Amino acid sequence: MKLLEDRIREEGTVKPGDVLKVDAFLNHQCDVALFDKMGEEWARLFKGVRIDKILTIEASGIGIACIAARHFNNAPVVFAKKAQSINLDGEQYSTTIYSFTKQKEFPVIVGKRFLNEGEHVLIIDDFLANGNALNGLLEICESAGVIVEGFAIAVEKGFQGGGDALRQRGYRVESLANVRTMDATTGTIEFN
Amino acid sequence: MKLLEDRIREEGTVKPGDVLKVDAFLNHQCDVALFDKMGEEWARLFKGVRIDKILTIEASGIGIACIAARHFNNAPVVFAKKAQSINLDGEQYSTTIYSFTKQKEFPVIVGKRFLNEGEHVLIIDDFLANGNALNGLLEICESAGVIVEGFAIAVEKGFQGGGDALRQRGYRVESLANVRTMDATTGTIEFN
Repeated sequence: MKLLEDRIREEGTVKPGDVLKVDAFLNHQCDVALFDKMGEEWARLFKGVRIDKILTIEASGIGIACIAARHFNNAPVVFAKKAQSINLDGEQYSTTIYSFTKQKEFPVIVGKRFLNEGEHVLIIDDFLANGNALNGLLEICESAGVIVEGFAIAVEKGFQGGGDALRQRGYRVESLANVRTMDATTGTIEFN
Repeated sequence: MKLLEDRIREEGTVKPGDVLKVDAFLNHQCDVALFDKMGEEWARLFKGVRIDKILTIEASGIGIACIAARHFNNAPVVFAKKAQSINLDGEQYSTTIYSFTKQKEFPVIVGKRFLNEGEHVLIIDDFLANGNALNGLLEICESAGVIVEGFAIAVEKGFQGGGDALRQRGYRVESLANVRTMDATTGTIEFN
């Protein structure tokens, strides 16, 4: 999606350690008009596919998923939680993931009553790098017996392999910007 | 807002310890059509008020704030982070709050470049109980020298006093549902 690629080129910053900072419009400050265009594009890509529910993970996925849901017939958005809370009760699906950006392990928790067997689910997130977070969500989807129709990703860091691993397992992955290479010294970013 | 009050009566659950669970539509599963109506109502209430930016806090505030922003001329949404991350760099405003639902202390962090002196800010969140989280955001707003035009809250637990304390300090607080009393034994919820 050219709009997103251009925005990453203009306002994104490459940091050492394969970090791509897009906090000015994607995951700290949110450009909701951009999110709306992204939702429109995913709706075009997944046209004709049954989507009963959108699943994402806190925190950066939530805003994107909620605005995108407006283009999927207002499908309910469920966000997986990364911490226990007294607001979480009843039976839960849970697993553990390692977060590259937070550099520690997190639980991933979804209340069982929010994923029902046989539902068709679209997983949305802001980033796909090594795929740890999404694999955690997939594991939960498998436990719940829902049908994962695909992944709608804003920025894939293609060179980290998480996206291709999902594709090799037969999943549809639609990334609106797929970074082939990026260089912290020159600041260059190239897309697939 | 009758729509939200009715929804809380129908699908909310009162738990011991003053916990009101609304996870079926507000803060675990998100009803984005409802969020849109909430955004419309806040836009009506704050009509004529200059809003340059919307500030919220991860995680449950983000979806509501992003959808509401569509009704505020696509104002950028900045969400405060509750953990350090390698995605956070540069100068930051930060403070510490105690979370009632997580029962521990959290940092609250906003990158300095996302709040600029003189900007008119609307603070949006899903819940207002004792006001800890919002006081943390206010402290950051004061440090940044932004003008807080008010608070747009989905559910205020009026009996916990956080909202009235903000009103007494002269802030405008618009809560779409303001719980006067709730009873975990009978399940009754009464609104102001």
